[in-house]
Amino acid sequence: MRVLERLDALYAIGGGPGANRPGYTPAEDEAHALAAGWMRDAGLDVSVDPHGNLVGRLAGEDPSLSEVWTGSHLDSVPQGGRYDGALGVVAGIEALERLGRRRRTLAVVSFREEERGCVGSQRFCAEGALPGTYLELHHEQGPRLAAAGAPLGVVTGIVGYKRGWKTIEGRAGHAGTTPMDVRDDALVTAAAELLRIRDVARSIPDAVATVGQLEVEPGGSNVIPGRERFSVDLRAPDLEHLERLVAEVGLDESTGRTAPSAMGDGARAALRAAVEAHGLPVIELASGAGHDAGILATAGVDAGMLFVRAQNGGASHSPDEAAADEDVAVAVDVLTDALGRLASA
Amino acid sequence: MRVLERLDALYAIGGGPGANRPGYTPAEDEAHALAAGWMRDAGLDVSVDPHGNLVGRLAGEDPSLSEVWTGSHLDSVPQGGRYDGALGVVAGIEALERLGRRRRTLAVVSFREEERGCVGSQRFCAEGALPGTYLELHHEQGPRLAAAGAPLGVVTGIVGYKRGWKTIEGRAGHAGTTPMDVRDDALVTAAAELLRIRDVARSIPDAVATVGQLEVEPGGSNVIPGRERFSVDLRAPDLEHLERLVAEVGLDESTGRTAPSAMGDGARAALRAAVEAHGLPVIELASGAGHDAGILATAGVDAGMLFVRAQNGGASHSPDEAAADEDVAVAVDVLTDALGRLASA
Repeated sequence: MRVLERLDALYAIGGGPGANRPGYTPAEDEAHALAAGWMRDAGLDVSVDPHGNLVGRLAGEDPSLSEVWTGSHLDSVPQGGRYDGALGVVAGIEALERLGRRRRTLAVVSFREEERGCVGSQRFCAEGALPGTYLELHHEQGPRLAAAGAPLGVVTGIVGYKRGWKTIEGRAGHAGTTPMDVRDDALVTAAAELLRIRDVARSIPDAVATVGQLEVEPGGSNVIPGRERFSVDLRAPDLEHLERLVAEVGLDESTGRTAPSAMGDGARAALRAAVEAHGLPVIELASGAGHDAGILATAGVDAGMLFVRAQNGGASHSPDEAAADEDVAVAVDVLTDALGRLASA
Repeated sequence: MRVLERLDALYAIGGGPGANRPGYTPAEDEAHALAAGWMRDAGLDVSVDPHGNLVGRLAGEDPSLSEVWTGSHLDSVPQGGRYDGALGVVAGIEALERLGRRRRTLAVVSFREEERGCVGSQRFCAEGALPGTYLELHHEQGPRLAAAGAPLGVVTGIVGYKRGWKTIEGRAGHAGTTPMDVRDDALVTAAAELLRIRDVARSIPDAVATVGQLEVEPGGSNVIPGRERFSVDLRAPDLEHLERLVAEVGLDESTGRTAPSAMGDGARAALRAAVEAHGLPVIELASGAGHDAGILATAGVDAGMLFVRAQNGGASHSPDEAAADEDVAVAVDVLTDALGRLASA
């Protein structure tokens, strides 16, 4: 299958292990050059915007109508996976070649540097002429479709997150001379707090909370910890649940947040219809990671995302990232179908 | 009070904040020189053994009888306290000056480098001629006498400890795309384990367990922890309870252990009698920290310890270490009394 061969060609850029194409580096440039060639082979009109985003356009019969775009990104994290971003661009080129000229203008885009804050799509939305609709096919990067036994999922929205730190104060002391019943051990208090945060996240639908960094002070093996500081990453697919999660967990310092972004009704409906037309179950799910589609949705575009089932427990941002060939094949078919419905409307 | 003035003089060595007289450094040498002068002023016969331990002797009427020694150490941790070690040496000099010649030979010793493994007393016990009895007055370095409302405590034994590491394996994953119910978060598992270890220690009399160091891998704020490794410091005053604690906590790696050492019956009895004779309650308690007296007890000396009540919640190894002047005064009186009973017997 040509899509898989092209994923292999992109994966080979930058040297192994894994994908190594950080945004705005020669490796990303090389991937863009390769994709530009495939776009030209597909009969698309290739251009690069002032931010380096690569666009392949197929002019529609009625240029006055809003345009239908698809795509994703070709940058990767260091030692990343074969599908993250690349699949959406390669599948978009394939879909446009299959569809040919339609009523509305079609385009496939590769946004620059998605992995560090969706830089290319942010800049595009700040200054570009927005399409009417945007569909993005992407690796799920999680285990839910595998658990549901479904090859594809239609994304309902992209979670918002809030990140920050919590600090726990205790009282440092001698590990030998301080009896258990008079201790104020900051790490023990933090342990109970970690379990409470886990329980709070479990109690809110589709919310997640992660403590990934924890500092112990003073950090001697024979000293009772006097102070703890740990990072907290909180996510939920809608603002109400995110705010409830943030309020119940409580942060002492905030280091960043983004609001959740809902996918557009038109885009979601087209994807649902295409999934159903292929005889597949319609699984709708929120995206726990940020994507270019979220940036376009926030900017007002009718944006939708199609997830393809992950193998290896949902592994991503690693060479273990995988998807079954037959899942990729049906994903390309469904993306093509949905784009065709939208471009013909 | 001369004892307090001498503690001040020792505390001033090495510059602030706190005591700064690490073992086998010029600052410890300076403290030994000062103490040697006080010993000579007290009429003692001063000598230094091959390991640098300082001894002031007062020959007894019957040199064939076993000797009665007292003392402690003059080294300190960096930024240590005013009493730790120094009190036992200064009080010992004071006691011998007050007692004068007795039936048995009396001596006061300052062992080198106690703070990093009782180096001086270990070397002394490996090669020296051991006394029959050894009493050590020391700051409690804990909160128990303050809680009991007693100025003095008679030590029953010195806890044994076992140190090591535990490792918890989980599964790293994306903080956004991995739902709570499929996570295997090593830090959350570790949190539950920390609380279990706390509960195990609480369930065993006089046992303590401390986790003072904890490593989170991979340690990214948006990555579910895949592996935890934390230090465990386990202590109990007798071997049976220590072994039960070690078995119930479970260690994956061991980095060291010492067996508990019981104080000698004769030394304990003399201290109890002296405390009672001063109209004070007899509080008996285990020492959670190691001391030179434990080394001598293990070597076969009838060793005993007298603790003086700590202020500031038991703070030690810090400039916050404190004891009330009147507690120090009665401690010197009781030490003198106990040494007198033993030296006259």
